[in-house]
Amino acid sequence: MGKYAFGVDVGGTTVKMGLFDDKANLLEKWEIPTVKENKGSAVLPDVAESILMKMKEKGISESDVAGIGIGVPGPVDETGMLVGGAVNLGWESFYIPAALNAYIKIPVKATNDANAAAFGEMWQGGGKGYRSMVAVTLGTGVGGGIIVNGKLLTGATGAGGEIGHMHLEDEETECCNCGNRGCMEQYASATGLVRLAGRRLAEDDKPSILRSGELSAKEVFDAVKEKDEVAVEIAEQFGDYLGKGLAVIASVVNPEVFVIGGGVSKAGEILLSFVEPAFQKYAFKQCRNAKLVLARLGNDAGIYGAAALILL
Amino acid sequence: MGKYAFGVDVGGTTVKMGLFDDKANLLEKWEIPTVKENKGSAVLPDVAESILMKMKEKGISESDVAGIGIGVPGPVDETGMLVGGAVNLGWESFYIPAALNAYIKIPVKATNDANAAAFGEMWQGGGKGYRSMVAVTLGTGVGGGIIVNGKLLTGATGAGGEIGHMHLEDEETECCNCGNRGCMEQYASATGLVRLAGRRLAEDDKPSILRSGELSAKEVFDAVKEKDEVAVEIAEQFGDYLGKGLAVIASVVNPEVFVIGGGVSKAGEILLSFVEPAFQKYAFKQCRNAKLVLARLGNDAGIYGAAALILL
Repeated sequence: MGKYAFGVDVGGTTVKMGLFDDKANLLEKWEIPTVKENKGSAVLPDVAESILMKMKEKGISESDVAGIGIGVPGPVDETGMLVGGAVNLGWESFYIPAALNAYIKIPVKATNDANAAAFGEMWQGGGKGYRSMVAVTLGTGVGGGIIVNGKLLTGATGAGGEIGHMHLEDEETECCNCGNRGCMEQYASATGLVRLAGRRLAEDDKPSILRSGELSAKEVFDAVKEKDEVAVEIAEQFGDYLGKGLAVIASVVNPEVFVIGGGVSKAGEILLSFVEPAFQKYAFKQCRNAKLVLARLGNDAGIYGAAALILL
Repeated sequence: MGKYAFGVDVGGTTVKMGLFDDKANLLEKWEIPTVKENKGSAVLPDVAESILMKMKEKGISESDVAGIGIGVPGPVDETGMLVGGAVNLGWESFYIPAALNAYIKIPVKATNDANAAAFGEMWQGGGKGYRSMVAVTLGTGVGGGIIVNGKLLTGATGAGGEIGHMHLEDEETECCNCGNRGCMEQYASATGLVRLAGRRLAEDDKPSILRSGELSAKEVFDAVKEKDEVAVEIAEQFGDYLGKGLAVIASVVNPEVFVIGGGVSKAGEILLSFVEPAFQKYAFKQCRNAKLVLARLGNDAGIYGAAALILL
């Protein structure tokens, strides 16, 4: 087996790529733009070309490369089939390894991007040393990746770990992007946090730093750090929803650890201080010893996890 | 490998036992009483003695037996360790295979009883042919067993699939047995159904068959079959809770099928007709194609699943 692997993380704007060795070292990383024209038909040829150029530059032959791991923004089943397509790229459903192999003759393994990030965090990030883990990505939405006994739980239709669309609130009147009402990501994402903040601020006239400037997840937690009372209330509400969601997940998969990443997690440990009490409150007692930790790999989690599909 | 296996299902009143061949045939089944005196210290010796007697009776030697599978009413981890004991038996925490091997020299594998029942239903019951399945047992409480890619998800502390204690209702005022409020089994178990019925009947004086006699899960669904309007309302509420719970589970593990068993499921297909609409309402669209089916093995699911630990 070759001693190198490539990790590829296909996003809506850029494709992140990394060259790893079999000691889990990220030797080099770079990006290429995601060309979405013509239903994203240039994306995989571009990825292959970029890898071939990197191999030439480094003097790496095909036999030196154990494989290419690739994470894509859509549901991917165990075999590497993109089930139902990737809306953000314009991709229809197809078998990813064969499609990439049309341009480069190196073994390919594919998975969903959130699952790749989860796998990366288990390999070299906040979940290192654990084999039973749930990764939670708090960005525009809430992504999830579930690892059981060291393996990704992809689910019957590639929707394993789609925890952002877990029903969490019966009283919601607004629709989630998915069409349902009361999904976890309507509260526990960056967007959800801003929505909770807007609702709270509209309730009364209590003074708050948050009343000036534009509302963002960062602004809310910055205000919490300055002990802004309204911001603390909002963070408590956010933490209650997220902690409740994690408690529900714990009753299903009983993980050792939750690894929390994504934009909102940049708030740091203070975020966990709002989630932990709610988790303890709602979790079944036998699941309460699950640890809550921050993700460590940031935007590199996806390329790490994609490479881990090959190297782990 | 021997061609026989024993499946043992340790309950609070009786121990059910079965002799299987490697073609998945249940050749014989029997029961012995569960002797709970002295912290249940006689249970495993009694099991061993009963198996040895059966082997003698049938002329089966130790080398003819591939192993003994055993399900016990408590959390059991991957290795067969009873984590935290089994309250109903008076057992403390111990390593089950070694403990049983003190009395009988045949390989032993152990798991939780709900997990064993789930595994049995996958092997020869309602989940036959599926590899990604959630078994839901609607009895006094709500038990769960989760199977991913043909393997039981036991969880970090043996609490995988403890879905009865999933938080589902923020407005609950009464405590669950576990100490939390709003757990799924406060609504979606036999006990929960009776509780919902009691609450509904107390709301007004609308005539109903249910106002005479003692309330039970069976009585509610019998009344539904006679088109009793109040009973239908109660079943709808029950179905809403259970369907919501299953939808939440689907967003985590995305199974192919839910297999629904336990006492309440004796109502038959009519039960599913109340759960399916709620499941479709709350489930993330990519998880909605999960099938809901009834369990088929009844009280034998546990011995089947225990034997499957050996034979599958």
